[in-house]
Amino acid sequence: MASVFTKIVQGEIPCHKVYEDDAHLAFLDINPIQRGHTLVIPKREVSDFLDLEADEYDALWRTVRKVSSALKDETGCKRIVLIVVGYEVPHVHVHLVPTFELDDYPIPPRMELDDIDAEGLSHDLLERLA
Amino acid sequence: MASVFTKIVQGEIPCHKVYEDDAHLAFLDINPIQRGHTLVIPKREVSDFLDLEADEYDALWRTVRKVSSALKDETGCKRIVLIVVGYEVPHVHVHLVPTFELDDYPIPPRMELDDIDAEGLSHDLLERLA
Repeated sequence: MASVFTKIVQGEIPCHKVYEDDAHLAFLDINPIQRGHTLVIPKREVSDFLDLEADEYDALWRTVRKVSSALKDETGCKRIVLIVVGYEVPHVHVHLVPTFELDDYPIPPRMELDDIDAEGLSHDLLERLA
Repeated sequence: MASVFTKIVQGEIPCHKVYEDDAHLAFLDINPIQRGHTLVIPKREVSDFLDLEADEYDALWRTVRKVSSALKDETGCKRIVLIVVGYEVPHVHVHLVPTFELDDYPIPPRMELDDIDAEGLSHDLLERLA
């Protein structure tokens, strides 16, 4: 079944469009964290960003940059916060949230790093990435 | 004054390193949201991702992809959540947070979209991006 974002791409569900090209669509989130909260999606329905082709992935981030720049100019915000999660709609989407200060995007609670575990984990990742 | 991340790059502050190349460093966050929470940074100290050169920006996201893939394999997680904020340390950094379900990365509270405002805003953005 087509994702809600594919339905937006196909015009079956309306949106407040911000940008469109052959491969991407950007539109306002209907449940914004802040005013101007925008989603940038590849039109092709892929669930996980790691499953995009390399050129699709590069093009998506270039589109994010372009839309972020316009959004920053338009809103006069200080920073565009970027988020990729994907559990609710399994169609890759990057959230662009205009923010004026830290409190405009509260970061979830954080822990203290477990140094013993971190030593092993970073070692294993270093090897995997070598 | 050098950012705390530049001090990490220069070896003045230790870190649990996960990956390094000429232009990037990745290391475990000392205050993780979830186990395996990693930061990917360009070594060059730039505050806002919009101020990276186009090739630096592309290379950063390619590094994020590479490290995310290893982190997903290593932790067995379902999705890597990506976040860019930047108020606390003004040196571009992408958070990579391994998650197994939606609740592993709580999204901040969301509003209802104001349709009247959205109509004008999306129109202005469309024009800006045309």
